[in-house]
Amino acid sequence: MRPSLSSRQIGVLLLVLMPGFLGSVRAQGDNLMPQPAKVVHAQGRLEISGSFRVALEGYEEPRLRAAGERIVERLARQTAIPMNSTLETDPAKAALVIRCDHAGGLVQSVREDESYTLEVTSRQARLEAATPVGILRGMETFLQLVTLDAQGFAVPAVNIEDKPRFPWRGFMIDVSRRWIPAPVIKRNLDGMAAVKLNVLHWHLSDDQGFRVESRRFPKLHEMGSDGHYYTQEEIRDVIAYARERGIRVVPEFDMPGHATSWFVGYPEIASLPGPYTVDRTLGIRDPAMDPTREEVYTFLDAFIGEMTQLFPDEYFHIGGDEVRAKHWSESPRIQEFMRQHGMKDHRDLQAYFNQRLLVILQKYGRKMVGWDEILHPELPKDIVVQSWRGQQSLAEAARRGYMGILSWGYYLDLMQPASFHYGVDPLGGGAARLSEAEKARILGGEACIWTENVDMENIDAADWPLTAAIAERLWSPAQVQDVDSMYRRLAMVSRQLEWMGLTQRISPRLMLERLAGDSDPAVLKRLDEVLAPLNCDVRRRVHHYTSLTPLNRLVDATPPESDAAREFALLVGHWQANKLKIRQQLSRWKRAGAEVAPLLQRSALLQEDLPLAENVSAVAEAGLEALDYLEHAEAAPDAWVAKQTALLDRASQPQAELWIMIVPSVRELLKAAEAGK
Amino acid sequence: MRPSLSSRQIGVLLLVLMPGFLGSVRAQGDNLMPQPAKVVHAQGRLEISGSFRVALEGYEEPRLRAAGERIVERLARQTAIPMNSTLETDPAKAALVIRCDHAGGLVQSVREDESYTLEVTSRQARLEAATPVGILRGMETFLQLVTLDAQGFAVPAVNIEDKPRFPWRGFMIDVSRRWIPAPVIKRNLDGMAAVKLNVLHWHLSDDQGFRVESRRFPKLHEMGSDGHYYTQEEIRDVIAYARERGIRVVPEFDMPGHATSWFVGYPEIASLPGPYTVDRTLGIRDPAMDPTREEVYTFLDAFIGEMTQLFPDEYFHIGGDEVRAKHWSESPRIQEFMRQHGMKDHRDLQAYFNQRLLVILQKYGRKMVGWDEILHPELPKDIVVQSWRGQQSLAEAARRGYMGILSWGYYLDLMQPASFHYGVDPLGGGAARLSEAEKARILGGEACIWTENVDMENIDAADWPLTAAIAERLWSPAQVQDVDSMYRRLAMVSRQLEWMGLTQRISPRLMLERLAGDSDPAVLKRLDEVLAPLNCDVRRRVHHYTSLTPLNRLVDATPPESDAAREFALLVGHWQANKLKIRQQLSRWKRAGAEVAPLLQRSALLQEDLPLAENVSAVAEAGLEALDYLEHAEAAPDAWVAKQTALLDRASQPQAELWIMIVPSVRELLKAAEAGK
Repeated sequence: MRPSLSSRQIGVLLLVLMPGFLGSVRAQGDNLMPQPAKVVHAQGRLEISGSFRVALEGYEEPRLRAAGERIVERLARQTAIPMNSTLETDPAKAALVIRCDHAGGLVQSVREDESYTLEVTSRQARLEAATPVGILRGMETFLQLVTLDAQGFAVPAVNIEDKPRFPWRGFMIDVSRRWIPAPVIKRNLDGMAAVKLNVLHWHLSDDQGFRVESRRFPKLHEMGSDGHYYTQEEIRDVIAYARERGIRVVPEFDMPGHATSWFVGYPEIASLPGPYTVDRTLGIRDPAMDPTREEVYTFLDAFIGEMTQLFPDEYFHIGGDEVRAKHWSESPRIQEFMRQHGMKDHRDLQAYFNQRLLVILQKYGRKMVGWDEILHPELPKDIVVQSWRGQQSLAEAARRGYMGILSWGYYLDLMQPASFHYGVDPLGGGAARLSEAEKARILGGEACIWTENVDMENIDAADWPLTAAIAERLWSPAQVQDVDSMYRRLAMVSRQLEWMGLTQRISPRLMLERLAGDSDPAVLKRLDEVLAPLNCDVRRRVHHYTSLTPLNRLVDATPPESDAAREFALLVGHWQANKLKIRQQLSRWKRAGAEVAPLLQRSALLQEDLPLAENVSAVAEAGLEALDYLEHAEAAPDAWVAKQTALLDRASQPQAELWIMIVPSVRELLKAAEAGK
Repeated sequence: MRPSLSSRQIGVLLLVLMPGFLGSVRAQGDNLMPQPAKVVHAQGRLEISGSFRVALEGYEEPRLRAAGERIVERLARQTAIPMNSTLETDPAKAALVIRCDHAGGLVQSVREDESYTLEVTSRQARLEAATPVGILRGMETFLQLVTLDAQGFAVPAVNIEDKPRFPWRGFMIDVSRRWIPAPVIKRNLDGMAAVKLNVLHWHLSDDQGFRVESRRFPKLHEMGSDGHYYTQEEIRDVIAYARERGIRVVPEFDMPGHATSWFVGYPEIASLPGPYTVDRTLGIRDPAMDPTREEVYTFLDAFIGEMTQLFPDEYFHIGGDEVRAKHWSESPRIQEFMRQHGMKDHRDLQAYFNQRLLVILQKYGRKMVGWDEILHPELPKDIVVQSWRGQQSLAEAARRGYMGILSWGYYLDLMQPASFHYGVDPLGGGAARLSEAEKARILGGEACIWTENVDMENIDAADWPLTAAIAERLWSPAQVQDVDSMYRRLAMVSRQLEWMGLTQRISPRLMLERLAGDSDPAVLKRLDEVLAPLNCDVRRRVHHYTSLTPLNRLVDATPPESDAAREFALLVGHWQANKLKIRQQLSRWKRAGAEVAPLLQRSALLQEDLPLAENVSAVAEAGLEALDYLEHAEAAPDAWVAKQTALLDRASQPQAELWIMIVPSVRELLKAAEAGK
């Protein structure tokens, strides 16, 4: 499920050219992300003090009471004002009154009403919603409104009417290739709730590991996980934690391919006899379940029976992606079966497998979700297709009557800038020309984090705050498009997320400290701030990775997007007005490249980054020389331009799996210098 | 228990004048803290790779096996190299062999053997100790030895023989004045273990809150805690967690004073009829238990019987400090009792109370610990006196045959620099002239954190890494005194502690972000880096505090010691050689003061800091002008000197409970300028 995306440079270029990027004016206190459907500012402010209390009206349930207490606890943490989180019984005395109309689904569904209204006056705030999930959404909005001004902590008076654009706003975490423990999942659920995402798609099995305790088939987790799996108790705990935050949990067990870890304990369900070991290598592997054996369906029936006891969601993700024909071709028995059933290729065999699987899922009251490849005319219309191929693929499914969710464009491990993901719309591209009825079949999208090059240490940094940009695309009205505003609010959300325990800012800092050893990590940081990692597909081509390769190099500590390079690109876009700032920044980077070299030499993990340091210095120097020409308003000589262009071409080649992100901006300076203006 | 300490400026001065401060040369990889008793470096290095495994030899127990697995898990985290923490059964194949001789105490005692030897060669590391606790100490040494060099992660070849100087190395946390939840306690236990502290002294009750669930007397926690208390299950969990790390847990229930929170539910044990409420105010309060009623001892017998079931340590801390005579004087019944028993003052009455308490403790097999005030000739010699008054008080007790521990000089909430605490020796001052036998009665010391001005958010920043300096004083040989080396290693320990989950570096950063609101916190940080908080006793005199006052001002986000000011003092100490650096730094602070002003004005919580910003700018400007005179080798004119002296005098007055810590250094520059050299 690996789309080939345009290079990150294109993303950066798009960003710079995007209309409105420099023009937006921010409203006071406007830190909301995702932006609500309708916001009307009013006069006044609701003061937040130690006497802040919450009262519930209307329908009540334990989840609502817990949410009411949690909002006070988070407010206390956000302001450091001691507060009493016990609910107030008299609404007249409460600072925030929450009124819920009725219960939501016993199991939250894709049709759950998530709308809410929030009215804040200087006297009281009032949050109303049809269902508890709507209340949970509005709570996050309320907390994002809290600001510290010259009078103290307050929420500005405002009227908000809000509801999501898409009903399926997911976040997929691959816990198979690298082990991601339950506490990390839980803090990511907090992050998801903060930006109103509503589906945790949990990629629980793959070639590299089977991560759920199965009591029915214990060799699955005992032999397929290296001891890294969730107990059933942990799974239940995570699901309950998610429900408290209005988040569905959709499990994925990838079948019939991507399943080597199953075969370690149960080779009898594989196409070839084995034996199998947990696969440490990455990429698409050959082993696959044998769709021709009845024992396989008996096994899957019992397994899915057990798992649907554990996972209550109405959807069950069967993966279904990237099945290789190889082992099926090598099995004479399977070949004979295909001949007997008139199957022309392995796609037909997979369709047969999926239909058998569908019957099992239906037996347990579940609907099927799968990646693009499961799409087949014989499957019913209530399945959901998750597209890693793009909107065109999704649009075709929608035309044929299938529901779909988009993940192309939302792959976080591809290390694209937030602006790129923000620009991808499930109803854009090939889906833009669908009829309204067809569009309604496109349920939303899912940010995905695959963990070939991500582990429990840097996963937060790979996911956040990026995912908040995708969350806004999926929640907010389609016309919310201001990239400048998005980046400003993204920075505020990132702060808020760290208050909630996410580690996207502290973790890269600790990783740089590890790399710097006894030296000052600040020097290393100045180099690192202009770098960005290659996307993980490319990394796998230039470096040998397995699921045990240490992720402790500079590329692993480098966030997906260079804020410094992005901000520098803005300066260069208006270089005439920013000459001094550009010069200061380039001088700083020129020095940084030189200063960091001894530190890089001392560390076995950093020596590979020496060419980057040299190139950053040289690129900055080229930019400074270009500025000199520009300041004297003379066209740079051809020989100089040729020499520097060659330098930039060299520096635009990745080193140690890292890009130097200021190269395109310096190239712009060069072009201006060449023209003499 | 509030000693009056010399002002922090004296601490800073001592530091600058201390011999060896600038002269030490560091050994390669010497990041050990506390420094071991004996270290002999050898040739070679033990490589740390993904195949690192631990094997146990000799005596085994679950705690040792868990420790063996934990060291691999921590090593994997420290290096980000995936490792298998399962113990290796063949010692020949293990990178680290742990050999323990025999079991330790069923309940760890003050006499526990904590010594260990660690031998590292390029082939293998060998850690040996008599007891599991010795192994735990050596484990921490091993982890501190890991470095990243030009070849990779490794431990240098070394021979270490180590044992503690003092057997009682404690850390007291007051959880009554402010609530400190169990997870915070647990991460502090990790920090304690990392620097080889061995006693958690848990100050569990005081006027402001009673923090332990009592099943025998449920109104203690139900009415005395605002709902913030540890369940008995949590207490057991913390004690088990501590034991796994070789740490004893000594509970303190402060009696007969500092006990208002008990009386809310049980006024019948107080001297006056009440009613009582949880006391939000701070300082020494009047309520006290009634030592004349038999019902009080019946109550305490049952209570201590319950608590000794929970807390297995052989010592039980009864507080006993700061008892006021007021309520005893106001009770005719108590006065009559004193007359009948020939007691001349309230000290006699407290001694009577303590003797009755002693009998109860003995009944449950416990020894008494208490603050200075409990000392009385009628108490037996196996009690331990904890001195907040100083070494003189401790020495007098030792001469009279009593054991003691020092806490004067180790009060972390007094916001002294690490060098101050580091210079305080339990056997220094008045204890220096004791005989060897008397010295042996001084068991060690305890760092103490009182929480009048510290809460769960900033407690780590108040405690760490400072406490590591005290830990070294209590563990390492007396001649380990190099303050320069201490500060260098303290910075490394601080990094290590954050890997373990302590928040002393991230929490102040998040607090500054809260204060900065939408603005860039970096500007605020540049102001804050030269500031340090007043000690908490003084803060209480200049500002009204209760246990509910929000701790969200700049003073609360400011670490106890300004590293920037300390490093600046070193530069100024050799200003002739550092003129450029001094100028750069002063220019930076001069700008910072000006740049931060608009931000301060916008925030209700920061407006009080405007005079600090102005003063920092003015002080830096004065320093720059002094430098000008010095560069021209001319004596500054008298009028200029007088004017700047007046400015520095003003700036040396605290504002908003904060000191400007660069004032003494700029004063030195001024003096040099006055002299013209």
